[in-house]
Amino acid sequence: MHIINVHTRDRIDFIDITSKISELVKDVKEGIAFVFVKHTTCAIFVNENEPGLLDDLKNVLAELVPENKDYKHNVVDANATAHLRSILLKPFCIIPIKSGKLCLGTWQKVFLAELDGPRNRKVIVFIVGK
Amino acid sequence: MHIINVHTRDRIDFIDITSKISELVKDVKEGIAFVFVKHTTCAIFVNENEPGLLDDLKNVLAELVPENKDYKHNVVDANATAHLRSILLKPFCIIPIKSGKLCLGTWQKVFLAELDGPRNRKVIVFIVGK
Amino acid sequence: MHIINVHTRDRIDFIDITSKISELVKDVKEGIAFVFVKHTTCAIFVNENEPGLLDDLKNVLAELVPENKDYKHNVVDANATAHLRSILLKPFCIIPIKSGKLCLGTWQKVFLAELDGPRNRKVIVFIVGK
Repeated sequence: MHIINVHTRDRIDFIDITSKISELVKDVKEGIAFVFVKHTTCAIFVNENEPGLLDDLKNVLAELVPENKDYKHNVVDANATAHLRSILLKPFCIIPIKSGKLCLGTWQKVFLAELDGPRNRKVIVFIVGK
Repeated sequence: MHIINVHTRDRIDFIDITSKISELVKDVKEGIAFVFVKHTTCAIFVNENEPGLLDDLKNVLAELVPENKDYKHNVVDANATAHLRSILLKPFCIIPIKSGKLCLGTWQKVFLAELDGPRNRKVIVFIVGK
Repeated sequence: MHIINVHTRDRIDFIDITSKISELVKDVKEGIAFVFVKHTTCAIFVNENEPGLLDDLKNVLAELVPENKDYKHNVVDANATAHLRSILLKPFCIIPIKSGKLCLGTWQKVFLAELDGPRNRKVIVFIVGK
């Protein structure tokens, strides 16, 4: 089991962690990398690292779970939108591994989605394979 | 492979199944628990067990997939929203295991999301590890 | 590691790939099938194969990530909605296996969701088990 430390820089921030995961699978002939964040206000997703698209994603999250609502959780802690967006985006992904490399498509990158930053986050990577 | 039986109490209901999964991993030094529901109208998610937040989640699901629409599936069976919400929330999750414990963050709990209850649901837990 | 080739027929298209995955698990007593698409504009989901429901899902995706918006990614490539819908639906799933069969519920089928077709897509299936 490996831990990747990620420092996020803004309230909403998408950090490409692909190269950090790639380093961990160099000796794996065939298997799967399981990626998991131990947090309720961030998430993991896989898609293209294109700045315009990442801005579009921020806007989609703002539309799907808008800030200006009377969330009950905000009475406890003023970050309901971060929790709710994390539930939609999910705190994990799986990635196949072959010949020491992640089996990702040309445009696929693995991101930590910070939804209530800036913070220091821990990403667990567990590898099954040989 | 283990089966956890869950009895849900309402049309929409979020049941914390963390302790039931924890009991199954006590002898696992390091691994992953795979959680899967064999149903098309419920789901699995990981987040905080805070009553206000769970109410907020009900409201978000009602906004994203509202009841008052002419869903074609409702001609077959009047539960289209449950299917569509299940597709968004997903019927599975993964959780790393270390030293006989689920590697969850302080606030992370595993929930079965009932979307068309009350019903009896079966949750499969499969553990890979040693 | 197995590859399933899928030819999609329309811009948005949901292809049931359950039988193709089932063929790969016949000799597995107990385990998990991991399903992953190496693409940023399609996804994998599990739910019922009912034509009305699949039409409803198209409408839900059109509501959640509408076409008629000024997406920044469209300056680079006119398929922002496909990327954003893929992020919501996710490019992977897991399915338990028992006695040579996928542990799916009566109504559960595994779908490739084409979001920017028609195209030829590759689905990776990796099996852990014995």
